[in-house]
Amino acid sequence: MDENRKEQVPSMQTREEVMFFDTDCGGVVHNIAYLRMIETCRTHLAKRMGMDMRAMADSMVYPVVVRTEIDYRRAAKLGDMLEITGILCELGKARFWCEFEVHRGDELLVTARQALALVEMPSGKPQRLPAEWTMRWPDVARG
Amino acid sequence: MDENRKEQVPSMQTREEVMFFDTDCGGVVHNIAYLRMIETCRTHLAKRMGMDMRAMADSMVYPVVVRTEIDYRRAAKLGDMLEITGILCELGKARFWCEFEVHRGDELLVTARQALALVEMPSGKPQRLPAEWTMRWPDVARG
Amino acid sequence: MDENRKEQVPSMQTREEVMFFDTDCGGVVHNIAYLRMIETCRTHLAKRMGMDMRAMADSMVYPVVVRTEIDYRRAAKLGDMLEITGILCELGKARFWCEFEVHRGDELLVTARQALALVEMPSGKPQRLPAEWTMRWPDVARG
Amino acid sequence: MDENRKEQVPSMQTREEVMFFDTDCGGVVHNIAYLRMIETCRTHLAKRMGMDMRAMADSMVYPVVVRTEIDYRRAAKLGDMLEITGILCELGKARFWCEFEVHRGDELLVTARQALALVEMPSGKPQRLPAEWTMRWPDVARG
Repeated sequence: MDENRKEQVPSMQTREEVMFFDTDCGGVVHNIAYLRMIETCRTHLAKRMGMDMRAMADSMVYPVVVRTEIDYRRAAKLGDMLEITGILCELGKARFWCEFEVHRGDELLVTARQALALVEMPSGKPQRLPAEWTMRWPDVARG
Repeated sequence: MDENRKEQVPSMQTREEVMFFDTDCGGVVHNIAYLRMIETCRTHLAKRMGMDMRAMADSMVYPVVVRTEIDYRRAAKLGDMLEITGILCELGKARFWCEFEVHRGDELLVTARQALALVEMPSGKPQRLPAEWTMRWPDVARG
Repeated sequence: MDENRKEQVPSMQTREEVMFFDTDCGGVVHNIAYLRMIETCRTHLAKRMGMDMRAMADSMVYPVVVRTEIDYRRAAKLGDMLEITGILCELGKARFWCEFEVHRGDELLVTARQALALVEMPSGKPQRLPAEWTMRWPDVARG
Repeated sequence: MDENRKEQVPSMQTREEVMFFDTDCGGVVHNIAYLRMIETCRTHLAKRMGMDMRAMADSMVYPVVVRTEIDYRRAAKLGDMLEITGILCELGKARFWCEFEVHRGDELLVTARQALALVEMPSGKPQRLPAEWTMRWPDVARG
């Protein structure tokens, strides 16, 4: 392992203010809306890992969500300022995992984990993850 | 004009039951949600006009909304059964217009008009509408 | 346990045709769109369990998703006809679990599990599940 | 008219980066997604006019869209940086109008106009607009 290429594990923080379209008639944020907020955070995290959206649109190789686990602990309301944090937490040969938290100030509202693969669209053919990722982020590389 | 090819102006009716994700914290259906319901009706109307979704995905020529006008008169609520009706109302050389109404029983909740063009994606190049459309639906053909 | 009140475990099947708004520029259905389809199936399943949407809007006691696990196996495309099946799979004191599958014909595209609680809104106070549920569906009652 | 209370007509500018969930399989931003971006701009414009979201959630008096007109001129793509501008353009007794533009750099992609009313929810009862609005923004007051 080339220690010189080792980097800090990539992480990202985004902010969202809860809009009407995020809420439902229960008076709180709809469970699906958090996944849109998490996607925005994840897309910026992916950029930090080297995956640029315009480059993806050209190459048609995209990071695709293959599994989501999400726990809803407390509810956000209209006008709340939310902070979404995401971090790369595990690197395999064909999949990588990211973890997310949604906070309102000190309160933890939502936690989530997502597994992603790099997939060539529209064929749907999965790609091996870039070998250099293991060198850049050995702390989260598996096996 | 070949009278033999003349057909009834195409129309469509779809039904939607209001779900949580359609509502917002005002307790009623969010204004954007009606546009999703109208899109479903419009897609079925387009099928009736001969535009099949899978064929579109292959040819990459899609009907694209170029203008929407929508009036919100009364609000729908969680669990309401809505009926969306759509009809082709005007045919030009490069655009066609459809009109939509959303009813809850006898009550008219929403009216909308949309102009559409046939566009080759992703170039964005607009196509002439098929000449046979004017023959099939002369009652709505303009000029 | 009163065997006379025992009922078949509630299940539900809904159908969706993939619309433009379900897809993204990868050419396939966006991962979040399946959760909307699953919500529609779950809402109908909840009705079959006795939870009527209009009654909920009045009582402000709603079934709230507290956890989602979802696995994406194969991708659906524009115009695909999808079948979503849902079933009550576990009943606790304060939570119940449902399982979902999304099929396109014989192909299994997506599997999901969701935990739900009955929550009084907007206070967010969780309610005990109705005692009669255990009598109606003992096969899935826990402990 | 008290000239001393006169203020500059309120306007707002927000920015959005196009995410996967904004696009559809045509490879460009879906027509409905722009309305979500416009809602975010409009909500911030409303705050500048004195309508705070949390205050609204308490009073249950909300600005409600009663009409939307939107023209789609050019298409945005994944990763585009968009700038949404909104301005109060007309004040009546019971309705006010806002105008919006979506730009990508120098290119104008979308224009829209929305009429809004202040409505008490869930009764749906419309309220008169605050009299002071006419004094603050006489340049856009009608009649």
